Amino acid sequence: MRKRCADDPHEGKQTTSSKLIMTLASCSTAMRLMSTVTLTLFYALICCSVTEKTSNVSSPNIIIMLMDDMGWGDLGVFGQPSKETPNLDAMAAQGMLFPNFYTANPLCSPSRAALLTGRLPVRNGFYTTNAHSRNAYTPQEIVGGISEDEILIPQMLKKKGYVSKIVGKWHLGHRPQYLPLENGFDEWFGAPDCHFGPYNSSIRPNIPVYNNSEMLGRYYEEFKIDKKTGESNLTQMYLVEGLDFIVRQTEAQRPFFLYWAADATHAPVYASKRFLGKSQRGRYGDAVMELDYSVGQILTLLQSQGIENNTFVFFTSDNGAALISCPNEGGSNGPFLCGKETTFEGGMREPAIAWWPGHIKGGTVNFQLANVMDLFTTSLALAGISPPDDRALDGLDLTPVLLNRSHALQSRPIFYYRGNELMAVRLGEYKAHYWTWSNSWEEFNNGINFCPGQDVPGVTTHDQKEHTLQPIIFHLGRDPGEKYPISVLTKEYQDVLSGISPVVEQHKKTLVPGVPQLNMCDVAVMNWAPAGCEKLGKCLKVPKSEPWKCDWPH
Amino acid sequence: MRKRCADDPHEGKQTTSSKLIMTLASCSTAMRLMSTVTLTLFYALICCSVTEKTSNVSSPNIIIMLMDDMGWGDLGVFGQPSKETPNLDAMAAQGMLFPNFYTANPLCSPSRAALLTGRLPVRNGFYTTNAHSRNAYTPQEIVGGISEDEILIPQMLKKKGYVSKIVGKWHLGHRPQYLPLENGFDEWFGAPDCHFGPYNSSIRPNIPVYNNSEMLGRYYEEFKIDKKTGESNLTQMYLVEGLDFIVRQTEAQRPFFLYWAADATHAPVYASKRFLGKSQRGRYGDAVMELDYSVGQILTLLQSQGIENNTFVFFTSDNGAALISCPNEGGSNGPFLCGKETTFEGGMREPAIAWWPGHIKGGTVNFQLANVMDLFTTSLALAGISPPDDRALDGLDLTPVLLNRSHALQSRPIFYYRGNELMAVRLGEYKAHYWTWSNSWEEFNNGINFCPGQDVPGVTTHDQKEHTLQPIIFHLGRDPGEKYPISVLTKEYQDVLSGISPVVEQHKKTLVPGVPQLNMCDVAVMNWAPAGCEKLGKCLKVPKSEPWKCDWPH
Repeated sequence: MRKRCADDPHEGKQTTSSKLIMTLASCSTAMRLMSTVTLTLFYALICCSVTEKTSNVSSPNIIIMLMDDMGWGDLGVFGQPSKETPNLDAMAAQGMLFPNFYTANPLCSPSRAALLTGRLPVRNGFYTTNAHSRNAYTPQEIVGGISEDEILIPQMLKKKGYVSKIVGKWHLGHRPQYLPLENGFDEWFGAPDCHFGPYNSSIRPNIPVYNNSEMLGRYYEEFKIDKKTGESNLTQMYLVEGLDFIVRQTEAQRPFFLYWAADATHAPVYASKRFLGKSQRGRYGDAVMELDYSVGQILTLLQSQGIENNTFVFFTSDNGAALISCPNEGGSNGPFLCGKETTFEGGMREPAIAWWPGHIKGGTVNFQLANVMDLFTTSLALAGISPPDDRALDGLDLTPVLLNRSHALQSRPIFYYRGNELMAVRLGEYKAHYWTWSNSWEEFNNGINFCPGQDVPGVTTHDQKEHTLQPIIFHLGRDPGEKYPISVLTKEYQDVLSGISPVVEQHKKTLVPGVPQLNMCDVAVMNWAPAGCEKLGKCLKVPKSEPWKCDWPH
Repeated sequence: MRKRCADDPHEGKQTTSSKLIMTLASCSTAMRLMSTVTLTLFYALICCSVTEKTSNVSSPNIIIMLMDDMGWGDLGVFGQPSKETPNLDAMAAQGMLFPNFYTANPLCSPSRAALLTGRLPVRNGFYTTNAHSRNAYTPQEIVGGISEDEILIPQMLKKKGYVSKIVGKWHLGHRPQYLPLENGFDEWFGAPDCHFGPYNSSIRPNIPVYNNSEMLGRYYEEFKIDKKTGESNLTQMYLVEGLDFIVRQTEAQRPFFLYWAADATHAPVYASKRFLGKSQRGRYGDAVMELDYSVGQILTLLQSQGIENNTFVFFTSDNGAALISCPNEGGSNGPFLCGKETTFEGGMREPAIAWWPGHIKGGTVNFQLANVMDLFTTSLALAGISPPDDRALDGLDLTPVLLNRSHALQSRPIFYYRGNELMAVRLGEYKAHYWTWSNSWEEFNNGINFCPGQDVPGVTTHDQKEHTLQPIIFHLGRDPGEKYPISVLTKEYQDVLSGISPVVEQHKKTLVPGVPQLNMCDVAVMNWAPAGCEKLGKCLKVPKSEPWKCDWPH
């Protein structure tokens, strides 16, 4: 018999986790200084004496680590000159690297919705029809959120008894019906929206931090982020939450799904004291170092718990680095063009590493075109669950390439959407741009630039340029930076176009758009009085409802 | 007693090497198809039965592999998305990576002169005074070459009995007195100038290929490069020459210096049949794959000969990728600004890997600011030879960091020269530009662009812009792409400037420029009748001498 170390996560109110977090949140010096190495040992030696491996590889544990605004070029293994990600580089050395891995949208909310539903944002509703080609997301004035018609990974995994937790940023709507515990997750530690702030609560309340269904406090209030120094313990808290969850489920011999969605690399960028000032790259690099360290701690725990052969781990990011926040609070997209908000490679190509010792061959590179929606289908396949057959899915099952049964899956397109518009399509090494738009002249002239220092004539356009009759085509092998359009006069161009055109036609013909969730905004839906605010004495007065059509600048 | 497998290299006329090459040059199908793996085995099993290790680590063998126009971003380990350099990536995993390694000039001849002399081009004479800030090199009309006053690595290594060979491109002058065998090398297989062409011999003869002091033929004639398909066996020949040399010196138990200067990645880019079409990156990638394969073969031979613990190997490139040749025949400088011909990071930051099993700890990254001139001083230190004390040297001895005795050497500047002008200086993470120039308006308007797709206002200038009173300063950690100049109004700017200014003043005050070798050109000095042309019946008539001041466009 094993010693139990935590309550049932479905009750979730007084878990080891929440106790620890409350301690951390109250800034106990002892806890703040306790290194997570020590915590790992603590779990391994004191809390749970796990000696056997959970060996049911037909339902392995699944961990998806999703970074926020981290760029392809931010990892040493992807060429960051400062090479400050030893744990991620080691993860790649022990696992499989995907240099051709994509998000579904160059902005956070739609990307996260796509990952969890396996469907393009234009299908799952995470887009707007208020304006053409605009990226919409879920600020706290958003009325919509993840539709109840959508099925998320944790809802599917329940069929095989998985316990699921999200740690970090949710971003699929913050009104009660849209929160994680209403959408398949058993546990949650984190926040519904971005950690922008601090705000004036008479106009915009600060974003709440939740433990499961109850608010624990707010960013900049109980959960400090020092905007001047960049100091915050949030990543440490997210790490502890992740480690605690893993230990509890391992102890209880339940298969688990951990969606670890830390957000330290989203501006305002933060890191804890032990990492601040440690990077060659400034504050952004400090945040990356802390995330890298945390990834290392999680993998180390899996090994010390003896469950590394039974836990599939995937690391990626929600969209390209936000070059608008550079150089102090933005990352790197390596050799790629532009960044977050755009459908150039810098906006949508993501760092990606799969890790599963004993199953995935270490040190391999797979050039399969893949994307975040594949994580839905792949997670179900790993768990031995059939995907839903009542809806269009955009993800493929990557297990044949992960398990080396196949070098590459069938040729499949990557779709680059901006809001409601299919901007570009990649097929094989070729990418065809049907629309280009870096940002508007108006914004550009006001200093907003998603392509700083980059200017490819006719490509990084400041008007929404349509090229549907004659798309701009690049060969991403020879020209990963999208600088040299292939001449329309060449046979190569014509061959590529005749290959891509039917794929695009078929996609458009069969696409059934979802009900757009990101059209309406309202001050009344903001985070005035989240559940649990009474206990904390932190409820704010809800203003009168005054809905308006949200305005999206990009 | 060991079996001898080659003649004394100082005689050098009928070595195994030259016989093999003649066979290859005559395009024997059998030899062309014989893989170098087989050749390696052939050497290991048949030719020489080496059983003991040469254990004199106080004078290890030294191999410097110098690529031509290969960029920092061309290696998988430095972030090339196609990840097609498994052998170089493995070399890094077994050795030490230098992400902050520089050349001495963004053009080939001065860079090579600096490597071999340990001195900046402005000291060793590899510059011009014909025009301000212009990059000069050694086309076949150049009158000058490496001065007899300069001391090269092989000349120094002779003191400890090293036998030296250069394989590939020389580029330090092609008139008889400037050739490798007159400058310390015992053997040479390769060419004095770039493999431009093919030319019309009545105006410009094709470049000769030498075996030691005699011409073997000419590029595009006896040594084919198919400009249409890119097919050429030259890299294979260079590989065989390198392998043969290593085996012969190992057999003879002589310490050796191999300067392996393959040029396949310089336009016109070439690869042999087995590599053509194999890369995701097109012809340039094919060339990189063949070079990567060749590096792997050389390291494998060292291991099969049992001399890997006694052979120091360093891999780098002569300047940044030639973006002017992209996308088909140019490489990648990763996240860095511009390329060859410029003093931005893309022009001078180089891929660099040190490998020496048993001495250099595998898988390490060293952030020491280092450069090609350090290879002079380091080579002498490895051989136990004191550097010359009658001249200014610009190289440091890197052995303390290589052998992990020190994490980093003292703070030292990196000087970025363009011809006779100190354009920029790096100290620590900061780089100050005293002059900027991407290229002239005239050239730019004619389609010559060293910064394609990149445009940093006030930085990538088309006029020669002086900033000596208020240099443009970047933090290369936060901003490796040189896109965000630090405001002159900040304390950071003032602090950095007050640190760099005295370094620059001291450098300029003490600098004694060498006699410029790259000022005069003359049709009469071109490769009309190289030594050995009589035997081949390939002597051309030397025209009348008509010297002129060379004109350098960049």
